[in-house]
Amino acid sequence: MKVYKAHIIYTPQRDRFEVIENGYVAVNGQGHVCGVAASRAAIGCPEAEVTDFGNRLLIPAMNDVHVHAAQYHNQGIAMDLELMPWLDQYTFPEESKFSDTGYAERTYRRFIHHLWRVGTMRAAVFATIHTEATRLLMDLFRQAGMGALVGKVAMDRNSTDTLTERADSYVRGMEQIVQAYGDADSLVRPIVTPRFIPTCSPDLLRACSDVARRYQLPVQSHLSENVSEIAFVRELEPHSKGYGDAYRRYGLFGSTPTVMAHCVWSDADERRLMRAGGVMVAHCPTSNLNLASGIAPIRTFLDEGVSVGLGSDISGGHDLSIFRMMVYAVQVSKMHYQRSGGATPFLSLSEAFWMATKSGGSFFGRVGSFEPGYDFDALVIDDADLYPDDYSILERLERFIYLGDDRHIAHRFCRGHEVASPMRNI
Amino acid sequence: MKVYKAHIIYTPQRDRFEVIENGYVAVNGQGHVCGVAASRAAIGCPEAEVTDFGNRLLIPAMNDVHVHAAQYHNQGIAMDLELMPWLDQYTFPEESKFSDTGYAERTYRRFIHHLWRVGTMRAAVFATIHTEATRLLMDLFRQAGMGALVGKVAMDRNSTDTLTERADSYVRGMEQIVQAYGDADSLVRPIVTPRFIPTCSPDLLRACSDVARRYQLPVQSHLSENVSEIAFVRELEPHSKGYGDAYRRYGLFGSTPTVMAHCVWSDADERRLMRAGGVMVAHCPTSNLNLASGIAPIRTFLDEGVSVGLGSDISGGHDLSIFRMMVYAVQVSKMHYQRSGGATPFLSLSEAFWMATKSGGSFFGRVGSFEPGYDFDALVIDDADLYPDDYSILERLERFIYLGDDRHIAHRFCRGHEVASPMRNI
Repeated sequence: MKVYKAHIIYTPQRDRFEVIENGYVAVNGQGHVCGVAASRAAIGCPEAEVTDFGNRLLIPAMNDVHVHAAQYHNQGIAMDLELMPWLDQYTFPEESKFSDTGYAERTYRRFIHHLWRVGTMRAAVFATIHTEATRLLMDLFRQAGMGALVGKVAMDRNSTDTLTERADSYVRGMEQIVQAYGDADSLVRPIVTPRFIPTCSPDLLRACSDVARRYQLPVQSHLSENVSEIAFVRELEPHSKGYGDAYRRYGLFGSTPTVMAHCVWSDADERRLMRAGGVMVAHCPTSNLNLASGIAPIRTFLDEGVSVGLGSDISGGHDLSIFRMMVYAVQVSKMHYQRSGGATPFLSLSEAFWMATKSGGSFFGRVGSFEPGYDFDALVIDDADLYPDDYSILERLERFIYLGDDRHIAHRFCRGHEVASPMRNI
Repeated sequence: MKVYKAHIIYTPQRDRFEVIENGYVAVNGQGHVCGVAASRAAIGCPEAEVTDFGNRLLIPAMNDVHVHAAQYHNQGIAMDLELMPWLDQYTFPEESKFSDTGYAERTYRRFIHHLWRVGTMRAAVFATIHTEATRLLMDLFRQAGMGALVGKVAMDRNSTDTLTERADSYVRGMEQIVQAYGDADSLVRPIVTPRFIPTCSPDLLRACSDVARRYQLPVQSHLSENVSEIAFVRELEPHSKGYGDAYRRYGLFGSTPTVMAHCVWSDADERRLMRAGGVMVAHCPTSNLNLASGIAPIRTFLDEGVSVGLGSDISGGHDLSIFRMMVYAVQVSKMHYQRSGGATPFLSLSEAFWMATKSGGSFFGRVGSFEPGYDFDALVIDDADLYPDDYSILERLERFIYLGDDRHIAHRFCRGHEVASPMRNI
């Protein structure tokens, strides 16, 4: 049993922060939170030594529910096209390089180190079609001690020859991966990852669905990101009532836990299907801005009971920090507020924080809160150079989110273990 | 004469970068650029020693054409209101504190140090109504060796008692300031700063105009930021054809060099007046998002020949980095692109860079370029940890702009002098 002391902040509900000044959290040997309390006496475990983080903040670690590890090289470049030509001209050529495991290893090491720096302890990750490179990425996450759902990408049409794999080969690759990484309790697990309808034939989509059901794997893909993409899906899937319905018809819309990136243009029917299937939105506001996709109606999703997490979506997004995604999520929600003449309330900071922690974290298990039973995924924030004495605890958190960066993250924990720099581990 | 060697990048025109790999720039004793060239022979000055920055990038320093030094304490907090209630509830109470010069000095030191960190060597700054604190801010800028146009703020209505100053008192304060800081060649100069129409009576606006003409001082204010604000101005100024026209009628719209912050809702008539008066737009995209103001039509301003610079607008904006403003400027321009079905082209990176350097810099003199005769305001960018070997020079710049921060700024120059950390100087 371990006990940590600090100013504890988390969001058990989305509409408000729970703040415990000079509070205590107890963590058991399995890395689960046993309790949170305002005093040493109330926390119990009198035998446990207390690690005192002093005047620092202790918050849940970040969860990134949509990121492309294989696009890490392109982070911060190639911002001048919309989705479909952007894929053809920048993304597919880059992902093709991952047939070379040497290239993959170099890129994936950099990616994981950066993810660690920005305090993201769990990520739902797209790799590429390449089984070997995908396994390598999973090994690197394991060695780093960080949590990840890693997807070998399924795609067999409307792509380059170098990024095409037939259904039978895809299934064999997934079987290998499940055999090696199938343990449901592991921090690093496979996720079924059809890239999106345009690049996946009906055969391949059915194969994805079979693999997901057979091995009870979660599913991730893209949904209703861009108007040209949606028009293309309508051509490809004339018998579906919409983009989401196409996934549903192939059994890929909530048969197992499912997260769909973007959902910028999801209409009422699609949102209803998402709610019915428990499909999570991966809200990626920087990507949506950079690729000129539009602004997802997050307030509407929340009001309708659809769950939402935050995604960096590197390299459509340029910033790997989920703290930065909170800022952008609030900002773009204010565009809806402004355009609706104030009728659509913008997101509060606690709502953005909740999406980044408890809501997004729910895709990885009991992750993203300090309630008893949750994995102790946590960050210790040292805001000493942000003039903490002049602000309340919540203002200090807000300033760290808006102004801070990786320099302010003093410690990182994933399921109870402190995670050291992967530069040392991997 | 000094000569610097590095990969030189700047934007003599807005539509493309000038890149000189392993180039040279010569700077004379007055701190002006004498020449830029691709070789040691071509640069001349054979007697001058070369400072070799190796594989680093050399770019013009940043210019912030709209920032409130006195709102520095509120940076990154209080993001839950629109402009008018935000001013009443957060901003005016904070600015009232600057009657206390001790408080002012502490805040202004922090502000200038932060400005230095993010590579901004020139800023058009709002102080408060307080003459003594405003002079203190000017002294601190001087000691830091950084350029600033500093505005004692004029306001006498629709404010708190603590932030109200009558026209005669305002004029006396400005006269004191002009006497002490009136040298037109100085890096730190006064600027006439009526806060905005709602807080300035006709008397006070006329006094501002008189001061500007008499001492040939530039003018800064706010324009057409928020729809409620604009409706209020219409009530207050029924005889004006619009918000910009109200300033014009008082002689504050281009009689001397003028910069107006925001211009989110400027219509064709107002834009025509701006062009006619040579009035610059201070585009503050983060502020416009945070305060739910809307998105300024920057492409339209540029097409119509209105000049545009970038402003952080702390604390409506939360980020003091003009590099971050470039990213946001491109991003919000993509909202106009998306909404117009692609008819309104989004801003290119070179356009954003040009606004941050040569265009915004023009408000401070010959600033923001490396063309001969320009002040040598420059930053040396060390992107060693961003894997420079894997990218072209321009991609390296783009990645620094999108991913980098103050850690990557190795040296800062203002008018030829290297500027050391103000923590040491002031």
